[in-house]
Amino acid sequence: MSFRTIEWRDNAVIMIDQTRLPGEEVYNTYEDFKSVAEAIKGMIIRGAPAIGVAAAMGVALGAREIIADTHESFFRQLENVCEIMARTRPTAVNLFWGIERMKRVAEAHRGKSLDQIREALKKEAIRIEEEDLTICRNIGKWGATLIPQGATILTHCNAGGLATAGYGTALGVIRAAHEAGKNIKVFADETRPWLQGARLTAWELVKEGIPATLISDNMAGFFMNRGEITCCVVGADRIAANGDTANKIGTYSVAVLAKENNIPFYVAAPISTLDLSLSDGSQIPIEERHRDEVTHIKGIAIAPAGVSVRNPAFDVTPARYITAIITEKGIVSGDYLFGLRKAAGI
Amino acid sequence: MSFRTIEWRDNAVIMIDQTRLPGEEVYNTYEDFKSVAEAIKGMIIRGAPAIGVAAAMGVALGAREIIADTHESFFRQLENVCEIMARTRPTAVNLFWGIERMKRVAEAHRGKSLDQIREALKKEAIRIEEEDLTICRNIGKWGATLIPQGATILTHCNAGGLATAGYGTALGVIRAAHEAGKNIKVFADETRPWLQGARLTAWELVKEGIPATLISDNMAGFFMNRGEITCCVVGADRIAANGDTANKIGTYSVAVLAKENNIPFYVAAPISTLDLSLSDGSQIPIEERHRDEVTHIKGIAIAPAGVSVRNPAFDVTPARYITAIITEKGIVSGDYLFGLRKAAGI
Repeated sequence: MSFRTIEWRDNAVIMIDQTRLPGEEVYNTYEDFKSVAEAIKGMIIRGAPAIGVAAAMGVALGAREIIADTHESFFRQLENVCEIMARTRPTAVNLFWGIERMKRVAEAHRGKSLDQIREALKKEAIRIEEEDLTICRNIGKWGATLIPQGATILTHCNAGGLATAGYGTALGVIRAAHEAGKNIKVFADETRPWLQGARLTAWELVKEGIPATLISDNMAGFFMNRGEITCCVVGADRIAANGDTANKIGTYSVAVLAKENNIPFYVAAPISTLDLSLSDGSQIPIEERHRDEVTHIKGIAIAPAGVSVRNPAFDVTPARYITAIITEKGIVSGDYLFGLRKAAGI
Repeated sequence: MSFRTIEWRDNAVIMIDQTRLPGEEVYNTYEDFKSVAEAIKGMIIRGAPAIGVAAAMGVALGAREIIADTHESFFRQLENVCEIMARTRPTAVNLFWGIERMKRVAEAHRGKSLDQIREALKKEAIRIEEEDLTICRNIGKWGATLIPQGATILTHCNAGGLATAGYGTALGVIRAAHEAGKNIKVFADETRPWLQGARLTAWELVKEGIPATLISDNMAGFFMNRGEITCCVVGADRIAANGDTANKIGTYSVAVLAKENNIPFYVAAPISTLDLSLSDGSQIPIEERHRDEVTHIKGIAIAPAGVSVRNPAFDVTPARYITAIITEKGIVSGDYLFGLRKAAGI
């Protein structure tokens, strides 16, 4: 990869500032957990797996900041750190998964000194990051088997290296197909209101030398209907036990249009995105963000002041629209309830 | 109406500059036909019926500019004026309809003096504008019968007063339902890339005091799926004999999503939007516009320079997705081939 999304260096967290792409490639340094929480809220970093890594690193930073005489005080303050990290964004389950994993590590080291616990937390956060890269490469390997030679792949939002520790989930599939010499092309939905497709996916694809065509979201159906799209591949923020998938707003529409035009629709996501505690997608909380994301672009008003705005950041695609879910453990299709549990090893 | 879209005044054409809304309400004066042609190309004025009026007024201006000794020379030059007007935009049929109507009037007055022909053309252009307002009110009257009390209506692009001589087609239906005290609400798709929904529809609705909620295009499916939308009403740029309808890019997607969610999808358009010479929508030319409309918003880049872009300005919604077409002559549904010919009086 020609960029790093997030890394732990010298007891600080470094992140590429995704609000400034594609214009500027700037790396921010975070030395305290509250600024990491703000970075997640403010979408300096976004994408479900990347948020999981950032949350874990935030907890590791927080553990270093805690001043405590006793283990009891340390664990009480650590709980508080975890709560603040958990309140940053509601939809992507990887956030909660990352925090839970950190809590379990802390718990497992309860008998050790505070500095040993802090060290174990740091190592766990770095391990989550490193594992994510491997996971994405495996998702890519599985997913590439579904991509025909010469395919034109539509993707929505950014499920790329920037949404993960690197390589990407949906873009991992695309990268792997490209590396396998499949001569693919990509159509990227710009993905209003935050423009992850125009700003991030297009930037990654251009950097990678993969032929990329940018379209506005409402053009996807047009190109599907004209037979110009071979398949769709998107990421996920949370997948319920029955396969219903929360992902960036607009994913549901892409899936409906794909089904209507007999185009395969694939979801690429790590096992950490599964939330098998939810029987279906109706239970997934949907974040609504600020109206300014819709009414302003780069600070410039594009709408009259008096208009109301709705800004749901995610939607849920029912499993019946999904051809297959690509995980690092393999491809699940058909009976998701059975297949996802099996992939998760439950 | 609290604004005028287009009018003939003192041998000039006055248009509200739609590229500067909603920030500024500026009226431009055009004194020659070439600048009217540029205004249509540059989307100072847009919307199928409004383009029809503008083209007719452009021809009337052009007739005034012609210097000719003979009728033969005048008619040759008038043909040239009409050709330049016709080359401005390819999809909306009202443009060609308006020009043809002007040609027929010139032809009918061939025996008169050149100044009498010029006067007849001016009167015809003004008549087209005045008729359009009446037509829109009739579309509104018919359409309002389809809108239930308390409905939430989704609309795409701007088929409002700004897209016509006033009142609007889709927004004409909405205005009429509002005037009838139906207590309606409107969801307006922002309509990328040109943002007609955010900039124009939202502006009209706020001005009119009709409750309006702005969403990005990819949110329409989400709200339909949640049961928050009662019906969809859109305009049209060209309707083939079988009911297939060309309209702003993204309309097809709205229609597919409406069908999938069992929501009525209505097209509101004057008879002048019918092109009964086309048996189906596959024959409608689709304008592709400049890449900058997608990559830049108000001059600011939102995408990396190296990315390819596609920018089709329209799509075609097959008739099977359309619940009914609302014309000034009545509501057509079911057998469009029969119904549209009957409405057109053919």
